Amino acid sequence: MHNIMTEIQLWQHMSATRVTAFLTKVLQSRHPELARFFEAMRYASLEGGKRIRAMLTFATGLYLQVPDAELDIYAAAIEMIHAFSLVHDDLPAMDDDVLRRGQPTCHVAFGESTAILCGDALLTNAFEVLSGAMTPHFNSLKRIKMLNVLAHSMGANGMAGGQYLDIEAEGKSLNFEQLRLLHQLKTGALIEACVSLPLLYAEPDATTKANLTQFSQHLGLLFQIQDDLLDGSASTEKLGKTAGKDEIAHKASFVRILGRSQTEALLQKETIAAQACLQTLQGSTELLNMILNFVINRDY
Amino acid sequence: MHNIMTEIQLWQHMSATRVTAFLTKVLQSRHPELARFFEAMRYASLEGGKRIRAMLTFATGLYLQVPDAELDIYAAAIEMIHAFSLVHDDLPAMDDDVLRRGQPTCHVAFGESTAILCGDALLTNAFEVLSGAMTPHFNSLKRIKMLNVLAHSMGANGMAGGQYLDIEAEGKSLNFEQLRLLHQLKTGALIEACVSLPLLYAEPDATTKANLTQFSQHLGLLFQIQDDLLDGSASTEKLGKTAGKDEIAHKASFVRILGRSQTEALLQKETIAAQACLQTLQGSTELLNMILNFVINRDY
Repeated sequence: MHNIMTEIQLWQHMSATRVTAFLTKVLQSRHPELARFFEAMRYASLEGGKRIRAMLTFATGLYLQVPDAELDIYAAAIEMIHAFSLVHDDLPAMDDDVLRRGQPTCHVAFGESTAILCGDALLTNAFEVLSGAMTPHFNSLKRIKMLNVLAHSMGANGMAGGQYLDIEAEGKSLNFEQLRLLHQLKTGALIEACVSLPLLYAEPDATTKANLTQFSQHLGLLFQIQDDLLDGSASTEKLGKTAGKDEIAHKASFVRILGRSQTEALLQKETIAAQACLQTLQGSTELLNMILNFVINRDY
Repeated sequence: MHNIMTEIQLWQHMSATRVTAFLTKVLQSRHPELARFFEAMRYASLEGGKRIRAMLTFATGLYLQVPDAELDIYAAAIEMIHAFSLVHDDLPAMDDDVLRRGQPTCHVAFGESTAILCGDALLTNAFEVLSGAMTPHFNSLKRIKMLNVLAHSMGANGMAGGQYLDIEAEGKSLNFEQLRLLHQLKTGALIEACVSLPLLYAEPDATTKANLTQFSQHLGLLFQIQDDLLDGSASTEKLGKTAGKDEIAHKASFVRILGRSQTEALLQKETIAAQACLQTLQGSTELLNMILNFVINRDY
């Protein structure tokens, strides 16, 4: 176990370093008047975070032998979208959070109007990077498919829709299927994109594609289940965001609907399903398996 | 004059009808749970508006002989982005407007959190449409260039950055060049995109490209100058948004910096420059000229 944690920490460190380097290069102002606006964008996207999405993108890409230069672009686009979603989710009119990754949230640090625009710009810049950044392996047809998948995953029938359902669900009781849909859209869609983008580049056989896609879907659900379990048990210091907040806000959660022990059973069941997807794949899936373990064993 | 107004009204009607039909088709929910969210998106993007951007896209496309099916996609993407920008601009943390196109603004009608997410989704859906909607003339390399231009125009170095400058400028005194940059980013970038997208499809000679691009830049500036002139003179009923609001909010405006008569002189100067661009172009530029007249003569 000690060695596995060390390896995953290295992978996390490598993923974070690569994506931070790329984003630092991209998030530069053309106009001095916009210096502080870009500072807000860097604040929201460079400071900490688990970088699970980048880790998954790089690991899937390595498995599928996608060139590094391509993966840097996908990971940067996905992490910018993730950062955008956090900035908007934390707004006073949304989840009204003051703490994120152990720091004041973007609107606390830079003001509400800047935070709204900062989110808009991070979202847009993700599409700019994915459409514009050239590599020796650039293929316009593949890239446009990626853009379409990513835009669909983030739009009204994806992440934005999921966040809408999440806000609407406050104080209401959802059933299991409704909660599953909410999280599939809100969190699952972007985690799936970490796998979809390398898949669109590599174009492997149908079995590989199906297994990796299903793996990402199980992983997305596991991520949320673990989040719900942590919200009730971990400390604010450990989470880097306000603990117990979902419970207080009467947010829909798996723990709320199923109870703690049933939620833990669901975590087990989904973990087995995710492992089965990896076992069916040819070649080394060690890294993907480590990410799976990281997601379900994390305490923050 | 009567005939010219009739022709431009027909063009406006045709443009509005086409873009509304396309958006109505696109803005459909896949999940019944999201019905009201899509209602908000349709409310923000289908109800009224001058559709100047669609008019300009269609007129440029007609001049450059771009197929109609392609133009429908560009116009829809641009109008969705325009709608997104209005929804976010009107938010309480931004311009705090309650009236838009003669109707309650999106956050007044649907709540603030839904409005934020509705804007996010409209922006994302614009990229989804431009990357996904197929036509018999679909060309992935051209489309990806369009996506890149559009994303750049809307991001931190474009519209989002311009809106940031606008908010920051409240109560401060900008000089002419600063105000010009603000509007170039905030309004100009998207108006230029109405011309850039058809240009990227048609790939005409360099002179045609330069003239149309410069025309769109003058038009963008003229649009804003006329807006500033109208804010002080037109009624709320006529504008469909709160009149005199920019003045009250101590917003930077050309009238504020230059005075009314100097602003009118600038309008003249820019109009002549825009006309000169059109005169250099081969073939019929009647429609583009009508749009120019519409922009500078409008009273709403």
